[in-house]
Formats: sequence, C-alpha cells, structure tokens
Amino acid sequence: MGALRWPSLTSLSSAAVAVPRHHFHRHIRLPLRCLSAANFSAQSNTFEKELTPPPSELDHSSVKPKLQQEKDRVITPRSQDFNAWYLDIIAIAELADYGPVRGTMVIRPYGYAIWEAIQEYLNVKFKETGHSNMYFPQFIPYSFIEKEASHVEGFSPELALVTIGGGKELEEKLVVRPTSETIVNHMFTQWIHSYRDLPLMINQWANVTRWEMRTKPFVRTLEFLWQEGHTAHATPEEAEKEAQQMIDVYTKFAFEQAAIPVIPGRKSKVETFAGATKTYTIEAMMGDRKALQAGTSHNLGQNFSHAFGTQFTDENGQRQHVWQTSWAISTRFVGGIIMTHGDDTGLMLPPNLAPIQVIVVPIWKKADEKTGVLDAALSVKETLQAAGVKVKIDESEQRTPGWKYNFWEMKGVPLRIEIGPRDVSSGSVVVSRRDIPGKQGKVFGISMEPSTLVACVKGTLDEVQSSLLQRATSFRDSNMVDVSSYNELKEAIAQGKWARGPWSASDKDELKVKEETGATIRCFPFEQPQGTKRCLMTGNPADEVAIFAKSY
Amino acid sequence: MGALRWPSLTSLSSAAVAVPRHHFHRHIRLPLRCLSAANFSAQSNTFEKELTPPPSELDHSSVKPKLQQEKDRVITPRSQDFNAWYLDIIAIAELADYGPVRGTMVIRPYGYAIWEAIQEYLNVKFKETGHSNMYFPQFIPYSFIEKEASHVEGFSPELALVTIGGGKELEEKLVVRPTSETIVNHMFTQWIHSYRDLPLMINQWANVTRWEMRTKPFVRTLEFLWQEGHTAHATPEEAEKEAQQMIDVYTKFAFEQAAIPVIPGRKSKVETFAGATKTYTIEAMMGDRKALQAGTSHNLGQNFSHAFGTQFTDENGQRQHVWQTSWAISTRFVGGIIMTHGDDTGLMLPPNLAPIQVIVVPIWKKADEKTGVLDAALSVKETLQAAGVKVKIDESEQRTPGWKYNFWEMKGVPLRIEIGPRDVSSGSVVVSRRDIPGKQGKVFGISMEPSTLVACVKGTLDEVQSSLLQRATSFRDSNMVDVSSYNELKEAIAQGKWARGPWSASDKDELKVKEETGATIRCFPFEQPQGTKRCLMTGNPADEVAIFAKSY
Repeated sequence: MGALRWPSLTSLSSAAVAVPRHHFHRHIRLPLRCLSAANFSAQSNTFEKELTPPPSELDHSSVKPKLQQEKDRVITPRSQDFNAWYLDIIAIAELADYGPVRGTMVIRPYGYAIWEAIQEYLNVKFKETGHSNMYFPQFIPYSFIEKEASHVEGFSPELALVTIGGGKELEEKLVVRPTSETIVNHMFTQWIHSYRDLPLMINQWANVTRWEMRTKPFVRTLEFLWQEGHTAHATPEEAEKEAQQMIDVYTKFAFEQAAIPVIPGRKSKVETFAGATKTYTIEAMMGDRKALQAGTSHNLGQNFSHAFGTQFTDENGQRQHVWQTSWAISTRFVGGIIMTHGDDTGLMLPPNLAPIQVIVVPIWKKADEKTGVLDAALSVKETLQAAGVKVKIDESEQRTPGWKYNFWEMKGVPLRIEIGPRDVSSGSVVVSRRDIPGKQGKVFGISMEPSTLVACVKGTLDEVQSSLLQRATSFRDSNMVDVSSYNELKEAIAQGKWARGPWSASDKDELKVKEETGATIRCFPFEQPQGTKRCLMTGNPADEVAIFAKSY
Repeated sequence: MGALRWPSLTSLSSAAVAVPRHHFHRHIRLPLRCLSAANFSAQSNTFEKELTPPPSELDHSSVKPKLQQEKDRVITPRSQDFNAWYLDIIAIAELADYGPVRGTMVIRPYGYAIWEAIQEYLNVKFKETGHSNMYFPQFIPYSFIEKEASHVEGFSPELALVTIGGGKELEEKLVVRPTSETIVNHMFTQWIHSYRDLPLMINQWANVTRWEMRTKPFVRTLEFLWQEGHTAHATPEEAEKEAQQMIDVYTKFAFEQAAIPVIPGRKSKVETFAGATKTYTIEAMMGDRKALQAGTSHNLGQNFSHAFGTQFTDENGQRQHVWQTSWAISTRFVGGIIMTHGDDTGLMLPPNLAPIQVIVVPIWKKADEKTGVLDAALSVKETLQAAGVKVKIDESEQRTPGWKYNFWEMKGVPLRIEIGPRDVSSGSVVVSRRDIPGKQGKVFGISMEPSTLVACVKGTLDEVQSSLLQRATSFRDSNMVDVSSYNELKEAIAQGKWARGPWSASDKDELKVKEETGATIRCFPFEQPQGTKRCLMTGNPADEVAIFAKSY
C-alpha cells in the first residue's frame, strides 16, 4: 500500500514554538528568542492528492483496521512533538494556511466553520444579555493610544502603523486597531450625556492586528478575528457585575459547547490587561499541559473614562466618569479546541461546534449494490438533516471506504454512519464514534427508521460531547498539583504540571517564579479551598490560592 | 410647544457632496473638486435629549396630528436638500456616526442591525449556491497589487499602506486590502492542482479600505464592510455562468428583501472593474434620481490566473489557467435603502430588513389604566414574537405617545400597534402603517386574539413590503426616458432623469457624454427592447440600449 501522504508544515515549525505569554491583553514584554526564524510562509504547503490506492475491502465489516494504515501517515505523533503534531493537523484537516505576510493566517473553510459555530452561540448570548452589535473603524489616530498610560506601554511595541494614504504621507500616523478601548471611549464620550444613556452595552465582531514576533496559527497571529464587548455603567458595582457576567458566559460556552473544562479566575496584577483594574480569565489546559488563556473580561474601572473624559450627569445633576468593561474571545479559541481534544489520528471536534457532526459513508462492491446503498445513504442524510443534525455524505468513487474512514476521523467528525449492502437489506446502519477507536466505538444494527435513527444519533452526539468534557476534565485534574512550598511548585512545573498553591507574595516574587520556572500565575481561581492558607513563597497568611503553569 | 430638536450633521455636509463615481470597482480617476473640505468629523454631533414637553392627549385617537409637530423638527426636508436630509436621517435615526479619522464611519447598532439582516439573507443564499465562507488576511504585500496591470492602475491611488510594524520600518510596504483578488489568487495557486479541485467557490465577510477623498456615510467611506465572493473554474462558460448567477442573487435580494427595483445589466468597457473582462451590476435609482451601483459581479476571465500562475491539470493532463469571478455587496447598500425609501418624516424600512418590524405603543392616562394597557401590550408583543415578528414595546414614561409615534416613524419602523384603555376593553388594537400617513394608514379594531392578530400583522407587513417596491418601481419608471439622439439624452439628464437609448459609440464618446452631462453609462440592461436600433450618438447600428444617469 502506498503512503498516505498529507501536507506538512513541520519544516517551518521552529518559527512557531511559543513562548509563554498571554495573548489578548498584556502589559509585560518578554524577551524574544528568535526573530529571524519567525517568518512562516507558505512554500511547500500543498495538499498532495496522490493518496492510497484503493484496497479491495468494501464493506465496513472488512475495512482494513485503521491502526495498520496509520503507520503510513506522516502526521507527527502528538506524544513525539506536540507542536509539529499541531501544525500537521492544521494543514491536513485544512483548517488554515499561512498568508503571504509573515505571521498572518488564511482561515480555510473548515476552520472558519468552527469559528462560525462559536460566533453563532456567543452572538445569541451577547444579545440575550443586553448587548447590541455595531462596528467601529479600525484606524485609530496614534494620539488616542497614548492617552491611557499603561495601555500605550502595553501596546505600542506591537502596533502596525499606516503612514501613507491615497499616495500621500499622513500628518498623523494611524494605528490598525490592536483593540478598541480608545476609539470606543472617544465615541462613548459623544453618545453618553446623562444616566439615562447608561448602561451602554455593545459588541463588535472584527479583525485586530498585533505585530507579534513569534506566531503560531490560531494561537497567535499578526491579524486575528475576535469579538470585543465594551460597556459603560453608572456605578462600579454594575461594571463589576458585567465583567463577571461575561466571564461566566465564556465559562459556560467553554464547558458546554467546546467541552473544555476551563478554570475561571482573576489575573494577578502583573498579568492584568493594560488599562484594566481587574482582568478575569478562563484558562484551559492543552494536550501538552500548557495553559491557554482562552478568553478575558476586564473591569476597566474609570481608567479610560478619565483618559477620554467620558462623563455623564447623574440623577443628582452631578458630572461623573463612567465605569467600564471590555471582554473578548478570538480565533485563538479554535487552537484551544484542537489542542484540547485532538489525538494521533487527527482532529477531534466537540459535536456542538463541529461543522460536520455526522459523516455518512456508503459502501458497495458491485454495481448493482450501488443504487440501493446510495439511496439509503441519502435517505439517512435527509432524515438527520431534517432533525437539525449537520450531516454530509462522502459518496466519492475515487476513494475507498477505508480511506474515507481515516480521512473523516482525521477531520474530527464526531460520528460516522456506515451503510453497506447488508445494512440496506436489514434496514439498519452502523454508527461509529470518533472518540472511541475500533469496535468499542461502534454500535451495529441501528434501525434506519427515522425516529429511532434520530434518537440514536442525537443521543450519541450528546454522549460524545459529555465524554470529551469528562476526558479533558480528568486530564486537567490529574495534571494539577496542590503545592505548599516553592520547591513543590518548581517540582510540579518541572514535571509539566500545573501547580496550585496559596499566594500573597510580591509582584517581584511572581516575576522570579517566571524567570526560574517559566511558569506564570494563570489566575486566582474563583473556586477556592476552605481554611487558612500560608503563602507558598513567603509563609505569610494568604487569602487565596493561585494556579501556576507554563502557557502559550 | 418646544422644538423637537434632533442632532444635525448638515453643518458638515459640504464635505460629503458626492461626485458621480462608481464605488466598488473602477479604473477611471475623476477630478476631485474639494479635497480640503472632505474631512468630516464628529464635532457637535450629539443627540440632544431635550425633546417636546408632553402634550396632554393620551389616547391614539386624540394624538396631535403628526404634521403639526413636524414643522418643529430640524430634519431638512428631502425636497429642499437631499444630501442634508440624508445626513440628518443618519444622525437622527442613529444609524451611523463619523469616526475620528477623516472619512471613517462608526456603524451604530440600528444601522448595523440592517447590515446584519442583509448578511443573514445573503449568507444563506451564498451557501445554497455552493460557496464556503473563509477569511484571508487583510495585509497584502505591495508587490501583489502590481501583478495585474489594470488592477494596480485602478487601485494604487487609493491605497492605505502600513510601513511600520512592531516599531520597525518594514522591508516591503503592506497594502490594507482594498479588495482581495490578488491575495486570493496567491492562495488559490497553492490549493488548486487538478480539475478535481475545481470549481473552488468561496466568500468572505470583511472590512476593506479605500482612501477615498470625497466620502459620505455608507455610500463611500474610507473603510467599509462587505462580502467578497471569489471563484475559480475549469472553463470560461462556468465562470460566466457563476458571474451571472451571483448578479441574479443580488437582483433577487434587492427586489424581494430591500424593495429596491434595481436594473441589472452589464457595465460598459470604460466602467468595468479593474482586472475584469466583464462586470455585471445592479443599478438603483435613489430618491434624488441619482444612480447607485448597489452590487457587482465580475467575470475576471484569466487575468488574475495569468498574473499569479493559477493553473490546474485538466482531464487530459494539460496545464490550464483557471477562469475566475468575484462579486461583492457592501454597507453602501444600507445607504441605498435609506435613499430609496426615506421621506420627510425620516427613514422608511422594508419590513424584510427592518431591525424592528412592529413597535407597540401603550397609551394610558390614569394610573389605574396603566397595568391593563401594559399587560395587553406585553401579551401582544409575546404573541408576535412567538410568530417570528421582530417587535418591540416602547413603554418609557418620559415620552408621550405622540412623541413616540414621531420617533418610531422617523426610525422607519414599518408598523405601529397602538393600545389604549378602550382597546383593552374591546380586546382589540390599532395597526398603523409607516408608509401611509394619517388615518388612511390605520386599521382599527384588530382583535388581540393571537391567530387574528398574527395574520393581520404578517399580512400587513407583506403589503408594506410590496407597496414599497411598487412605489419605488413607479418612481423609477416615471424617471426613465427613452432617447434616440444625443440632444434627447442631454435634455433627460438635465431634467435629472435617466436616459435609455441605443449605444454603439466609442469609449471616447462615452467619456464625452460624461464630461458634457455628468452622466455615465450605468449599464446595458439585461432586459433589452426588440427591434433594430441606431446609436443615439453616431446613428450607426446598435445591438443594445444603454442606461445613462448621474450617479453616486
């Protein structure tokens, strides 16, 4: 059997090794180890279509066991090189490709469809919680960025600047938005007059640009897509409630839709967003046990309203500065899904966000079997589609069933329905789960009768969804170590684990941990253990435990 | 009665007077008359909330007739100054505001919701016709733009260029995408290998930047939102069919959703997109009888595939260049809706695209009436919402019913439901149409019984939708003149009308018409009269009639 060859991006992977930084929002600059290698480009990134010659097995019962074919693949095993595996998956599953400009990414239809599923869910939640969508220009006068001191410090090193427009040098450089707090406040200042104009709660779906030196598809790219919510309130309590509400929306989304058991919590002062008084975060453990900051919600206090003079007249006729929040989730989340659930076989998508939830593979050997099998496959597809299941038939004749099984498993489709001539005779199908390999993941003899079939498929999709969350939760918990001293912390981090321990030490101590172990405080989790605590570093009383980990 | 004051942008309107140009795609540069005045900015653009003191009338039967209040408004009458009226509507209805950078626009929630309705419809149609969404980076290497000769000629004068990234001067300037044909082809070249990879049919929803000197909200802004479809095919016939299919999708959308009776047709060579072999367009007549190019679909032939080497191996093993199309509709379309349907009262939205289709205004005088009226209003709202109608209650106590009537008419909401104490007693409501002023537009005594109410509201929304289309069609047809000589053409244009006449003259003659009359060929309409024709300019035989008009 010829090699099952997939396109590879691994030759370029040295450029994409991540350094531990937080992505959305930060104000600390880290040393960059390798600038020149950071140019990932698209050479040789082609999907070669000469694939396996057809094997002769033509019914699902006799399809060549997947594991035997696997050795022919050139997907780097996850355990061998997590980063190479990640880049392989992105290329092979056609999720994204490199753009012509260093660090940019083309999001291909399959990857974009995952983002669309994320948008679809969150967009409804944002509206339900009282936010309206709108759109702000992406060009921001440079002077705006300078108005909030910590904001400019955080963002100025990574700005893309437009200096020429319409063939002429511009009088003032324009920043291509890295985030929109400044322009939002400029506009809010014109729209907000009295307490009756508050709360003002908006969201935009947009592209943003940050001149990152070390990039990695989805996780950190020069340009990425996100939503950014911005709100203004009359009181600090309302702003705080909103910031917490939105991190709750993200947490629920991560658990229920993405099957990612994130840990929600508060960032340390060092890790707080440039311009915020508090940053809430959801932290996810990837398959290599690095942390991914998967969404953030900031209580901005009055920092931007003071900088921009965003004031309102309160019920007593007094002028007050508004209290604000901002919150964001980006295409980085797609990277989080890949790195949480994927395995050596490829992508594994949570059913709730999968662009294709069920792939139907018709199987026939003789010409006279073909019509019956295809008719049955089509009827199954229509039944499921009518029930709201995202289903596709792979009826191509160039590929064998075995090839198709591998291909759609690699694409992470949660369920496969196999229909051969014997199934047509018995009016039943075989349902295979992506998350359980081999015979254990198959249920034979599911009736094609619509109500039975729909109930079985929907029930199994729910099971896969829960099972993915459960698996990720076990993985997370088995890699979380409670520590009570700095030595224990160092040991846990050295083992690649997350360390959870009481912390009340200084910012300087926090930076020391980072320098010595590579780990940062991911968050002070909302869920805190009972009892008195002593800081793992100083032995002083501590109110809270913090979670330390290496991160993307 | 105090003045009903609205915010005004008219003091800035001189900057926004349009010159006849086509927006999306062009390759002719026109002289610019007034560059320095083109800086529209947001000063004094505030919505002053001191509105009319409450009149004492409190039931809909006794609400002060609208026309008496109207004189207090500062909306410029449409007939007096169309452009000032347009800018007033945009400010007053809170559709958009000026961004801090010259020529940029903030799309406010109500305006953005219209764009979302457009997206929702088209996104489904694009998928139904076989296209997948994806996303290309917005930064394009400058060298890409130079690869297709007419493309660079058309776009280079209006590019925004990023020259600094991450604090350093870039080696190659980056273009902020004005359109994506070049980067799309760069990527297609890597994805397309054989005929089996074709057709490749994609779409992206994105922002684009064109350094326009004379801007006008929605109609022409430095940055705007659009969708751009890009396809690659194995044969010229398939590409042509696709280009025509997409202009048909746009035409159907304009008629059925926006109630705009566009004229679909082919652009003249002079007006064809920079890089296309054929451009199809939909041309809409605005309320001032200027034409608006509302959507375009291009047959790109092999221009870009030759420039970028986008080739495939055909079924005979031969290497061939692909045949391509691109097509786009933008936020400009929102401007088209405003300028087609609006009147002196304000915005008038076609029900199929209205963010709010029905506004419910509860009316009570005495405290003991309030509960009954509000309960009935809420129940009406819930009934309609459950039936899929976009409905909102205006229950604020600061405003009188009369104020609310004016306000929601100004916002263009197609239907108003009025509920007073007498209606509660009789279990009925009053339904008022936005498109028919006064008593003629009211239907009294509509039962609140859900099935009756829903049927009446849905039926009336359909009637409003048809009526808007009919009205716009009559207006268009009564302003279209058939001409057979250049003198007749000049006369028609001088009267502000559109001229339709046989044309087979030269590009030079076409430019002469433009110089002498200000009108351009909007299109050779698909619908052509029968019979032999003689060119209105030269008297030579002509195959087709062309439509001439002044345009935005």
